[in-house]
Amino acid sequence: MLNQDILDKLEKIVGSSRVSWQQVDLVTHSFDATQRQCMPDVVVHPTTTQEVSQIVKLANEEKIPILPRGAGSGFTGGSLPVRGGIVLVLTRMNRIIEIDTDNLVAVVEPGVVTAHLQRKVEQLGLFYPPDPASKDFSTLGGNVAECAGGPRCVKYGVTRDYVMGLTVVTPTGDIIQTGGRAIKNVVGYDLTRLIVGAEGTLGVVTEIILRLIPQPEARKTMLVAFTSIEGAAEGVSTIIRGKVIPTTLEFIDNSALSCIRQAGGDLGLPEHTQAVLIIEVDGASDQLDPQVARIEELLAPLGVLEIRVAATQEESEAIWKVRRAISPSLRQLNPHKFNEDIVVPRSRVPEMIRALEKISAHYNVPIVNFGHAGDGNIHVNVMVNLDEQGMRETVEKVLKEIFETTVALQGSVSGEHGIGTAKQPYIAIELSPETLGTMRAIKKALDPHNIMNPGKIFPELNPESPLPLLENSAV
Amino acid sequence: MLNQDILDKLEKIVGSSRVSWQQVDLVTHSFDATQRQCMPDVVVHPTTTQEVSQIVKLANEEKIPILPRGAGSGFTGGSLPVRGGIVLVLTRMNRIIEIDTDNLVAVVEPGVVTAHLQRKVEQLGLFYPPDPASKDFSTLGGNVAECAGGPRCVKYGVTRDYVMGLTVVTPTGDIIQTGGRAIKNVVGYDLTRLIVGAEGTLGVVTEIILRLIPQPEARKTMLVAFTSIEGAAEGVSTIIRGKVIPTTLEFIDNSALSCIRQAGGDLGLPEHTQAVLIIEVDGASDQLDPQVARIEELLAPLGVLEIRVAATQEESEAIWKVRRAISPSLRQLNPHKFNEDIVVPRSRVPEMIRALEKISAHYNVPIVNFGHAGDGNIHVNVMVNLDEQGMRETVEKVLKEIFETTVALQGSVSGEHGIGTAKQPYIAIELSPETLGTMRAIKKALDPHNIMNPGKIFPELNPESPLPLLENSAV
Repeated sequence: MLNQDILDKLEKIVGSSRVSWQQVDLVTHSFDATQRQCMPDVVVHPTTTQEVSQIVKLANEEKIPILPRGAGSGFTGGSLPVRGGIVLVLTRMNRIIEIDTDNLVAVVEPGVVTAHLQRKVEQLGLFYPPDPASKDFSTLGGNVAECAGGPRCVKYGVTRDYVMGLTVVTPTGDIIQTGGRAIKNVVGYDLTRLIVGAEGTLGVVTEIILRLIPQPEARKTMLVAFTSIEGAAEGVSTIIRGKVIPTTLEFIDNSALSCIRQAGGDLGLPEHTQAVLIIEVDGASDQLDPQVARIEELLAPLGVLEIRVAATQEESEAIWKVRRAISPSLRQLNPHKFNEDIVVPRSRVPEMIRALEKISAHYNVPIVNFGHAGDGNIHVNVMVNLDEQGMRETVEKVLKEIFETTVALQGSVSGEHGIGTAKQPYIAIELSPETLGTMRAIKKALDPHNIMNPGKIFPELNPESPLPLLENSAV
Repeated sequence: MLNQDILDKLEKIVGSSRVSWQQVDLVTHSFDATQRQCMPDVVVHPTTTQEVSQIVKLANEEKIPILPRGAGSGFTGGSLPVRGGIVLVLTRMNRIIEIDTDNLVAVVEPGVVTAHLQRKVEQLGLFYPPDPASKDFSTLGGNVAECAGGPRCVKYGVTRDYVMGLTVVTPTGDIIQTGGRAIKNVVGYDLTRLIVGAEGTLGVVTEIILRLIPQPEARKTMLVAFTSIEGAAEGVSTIIRGKVIPTTLEFIDNSALSCIRQAGGDLGLPEHTQAVLIIEVDGASDQLDPQVARIEELLAPLGVLEIRVAATQEESEAIWKVRRAISPSLRQLNPHKFNEDIVVPRSRVPEMIRALEKISAHYNVPIVNFGHAGDGNIHVNVMVNLDEQGMRETVEKVLKEIFETTVALQGSVSGEHGIGTAKQPYIAIELSPETLGTMRAIKKALDPHNIMNPGKIFPELNPESPLPLLENSAV
C-alpha cells in the first residue's frame, strides 16, 4: 500500500528517526488489549500538531488508512490497524502544557498518561476524577477517544464531563479548535463532545483542555458483605434512592469471590458471604461519618453479614485489594475470558444479575460479574475454554443474549470500552438503522475517503469481513 | 410558498384545529425575545413524535423551512422564521412522562416549562439545577436547543450536563433515539450532545431524558459590597482559587447599582459601594457556615465594605431582589439595550471588566455589566438611544470590539444565549473557517435541503442578507 515515495514524504515531515517500517516496530504496534493482531504498514511518531496535520493531509490525498494510537490499552480493538496503513503513535506528545490553578484547567497533549496528570494536579490540591483501571499506562488521548470511565464515575462522571476543548486534526488534515477555556460556550455545534468517544474515527486529538475540581478533603472506604447477590444488587439503587451519591459503588458477586478464594486469596469475609459492595464516600472530613451511617442504615434490611469501615489508609487498601484480586483470579475457572462492560439503569441491576445467572445456567458457562454497579456498569466475564468443541458458537449465543437482555432493560452494550471492532456485531441490537445512519452520515461528511481509523464502530463499513469473536481481558 | 395542497396535508396529519394560517396566529409566532419580527406561513401544533415526523417529512419533500419553537423566549432569534415556512409549536407536548426516583431520571416532552419540572422534582427531594432567568416560561425543549445556563451553573453545570438521551426527528423525518437512561454510554457518536445547543438546526427534539440529583439539604445567600469594581472582579477567581465552589457567584458593577438607585430602589448598601458579589453556597446544613467563613476570609483583603449573610429565607429574598432589580432599571440610562452574554475564563474577568470600561469611555456609551461571573459569564449591556445620529454604527463598533476583546482573553462570544441570527456577524471572530466548515459539513450531511431552522448560526448560509443589528432585552 505504501510505496517509497510516500515513505519519503513521511520522513520529510517528521524526520527519518521517527518513521519506521521495520518488522519489530510494526509488530509492536499491531495489537492492543484484545487478543487480536493486525499489521500496520508504517509507524510514525509525530511530536506537533503541524506534523500530524501534514501526515493526515498526505494520508487523505493518497487514501491511506491512518490510526491514532496511545498506549494501546483499549479493550475493543479501537487502535488496531485492521486495514493496515499508518499508525500515528502519539505517546511522544506527552507534555502537560499548563495547569491553571486560577481557572481549574489543565492543558495537555494526548500522550500524557492519565495517572501522571492526576498525581501532578493532586500536588496542587486539585483533582482529575476519571480513573479507568488502566490509568497507570493509558493516555489521556485514548481516554478522550473512548470516553473512559472508572469506579469514581458514580459521583464525578466520565471523561466527557471533564473535556472543555480540543485541538483536532480533521480527517482532511485541517487543524481546528473546539470549545475552549470558558466554562460556558454555546457558539455553534458541540464538536468537543462529538469527538470525545468517537474512537479516533473523526480526527486526531493533539491537545486537550481539561476541567479540574478541588480535591475532596477526605475519603472513606467501606466493604459490605451480603447474604445474597440479590441483596447486594438491591443495595445499589437503595443507596442512590436514599439520596446518597458515593464516589464509588463496586459490586462483586459470589463467583468472583470464589475465584479469589480458589486462587489462594484470604478475604477474611464471613463464611456465607454471597456478594460484596465496596463503597467509597468523599467530601469534608466531618461529612464522611454521617454518609457512612446513612448507608449502613439504608443497607441494614437487605441481609448484611458484615460492614467493615476502613479506619486507616492501610485498611482502605486492604478492602481495595479484594477488588483488584478478582481479574487475575478468573483463569481459575477457564482459560478464556470474554469481558463485556454492559450498563443498565441502576435500578435494573438486580434484574440484570438474575438474567445473567439464568443465561449462565442455561448454557452451562460460568459468568462472573463485578464492577461499577453504582452507575449500572457491570463487567460481565464469560469464562470458557475455547478448545472445547462448539464453545465458540456457544459464546456467540451467550454474548448475543446478554446484549439483548441489556438493551431490553434500557441499558447499553458498552458503558466505557466503546465499540471498536469487538462490539460491531452487536451495535445494531442497541441502535436503530436510522440512528446508525445519522452517525454514518457524519462520518462520511467529515471523512469522505474513510481514512481515519477505518473499519471501526460501523458494521456496515466492513461488509467483506464478518468479524471474528474477540477475546479480551478487561480489568 | 405554501399552496393549498400542503396545507391540506398538514391538516390531515394533525387535524384542522391544530393548523392555522390566520394572521393573528402568524403574528403571535413571528417574534421572540429579540425585537425582530419574521412572519411564518403556517403554524402547526403537533402533539406526538409521529406527527412531528410526518410534518418534517412533508417539509423535507417540499423543501419548506421548518421551525421548532417553544416559548419563544430566546435572546438571539433562534426561533424566528427568517425564511418563513412552518412554525412547529411544541408547547402542547408538555407532559412530564416519568420521574424515576430509583434512577434519578426524568423523562419529559419538550414543551414542559423548566420551573414546572423543577417544582415537581423538588417535591420528591430531587433537583434539576439549570435555571435560566426565563425558567418560569421557557420550555425544556428550548433549553436543550440553546443549552441554557443560569446562575447555578458555577457549581452544577449547564443543560448539556443533565441531558442523558433524546428522541429526535431528524431533518429528513426519521425518528432516532440518542443516549439513554444508563449513566455511561459509549455506543457510537454522542448525538445527544451534538443536538444539545444546535439551536434546532439538526432536528426536532420530541422527548428528553434528564438526569436529576439529590436536592441539597440547605443553602445560604450572602452579599458582599466592595470599594472597587476591581476588588469584586478579583474576588471571583480568588474564591475559586481558594477551592470553594459556590452554587452561584453573581457580579454587579457600579453602573448597574446606580441604575437601581435612580429607579428608586433602596439597596441599603454602604455609601461608597462600587460593586457587589451575590454568593450562594449549598450542601449539608452544617457545611454552610464553614463555606461562608472561608469566603469571608478569602475576600477580606480585596476592599470589602460589608458582608451581609442572610439568616432567613426573607433576608435571602431581599438580597436576590437587588439582582432582579437591575434589568428593569437599565432604561434609566437610555431607551435601547444591547445585551451580550460573553464568557471568559474566570481569572480574566478583571481584565474584561477593565476593557469594557475603556470601550465605554472611548465611545462615550454607557455599558452596564452584571451576571454569572462565577463561570466568567458576564451580561454586558450596551445602553444607547438609537435615535441619536450615527448611534447604530457606533453600537456596531462597540459590539465588535467587545467580542474581539472577549476572544483575545480566551473567551467565547456566547455563554448561554447561542448564535441564532443575532450573533451571526460575530461568530467568525471566535471560530476559524475550518471549524465553521466542519460544523457546516455536519449540517449539510444531516439536513441536505437546509429546511431545519434555516438561516441560523452560519453567516455563510445567509449571504444575501447581511443581518441588521438586533436589539434584545436579556435579563
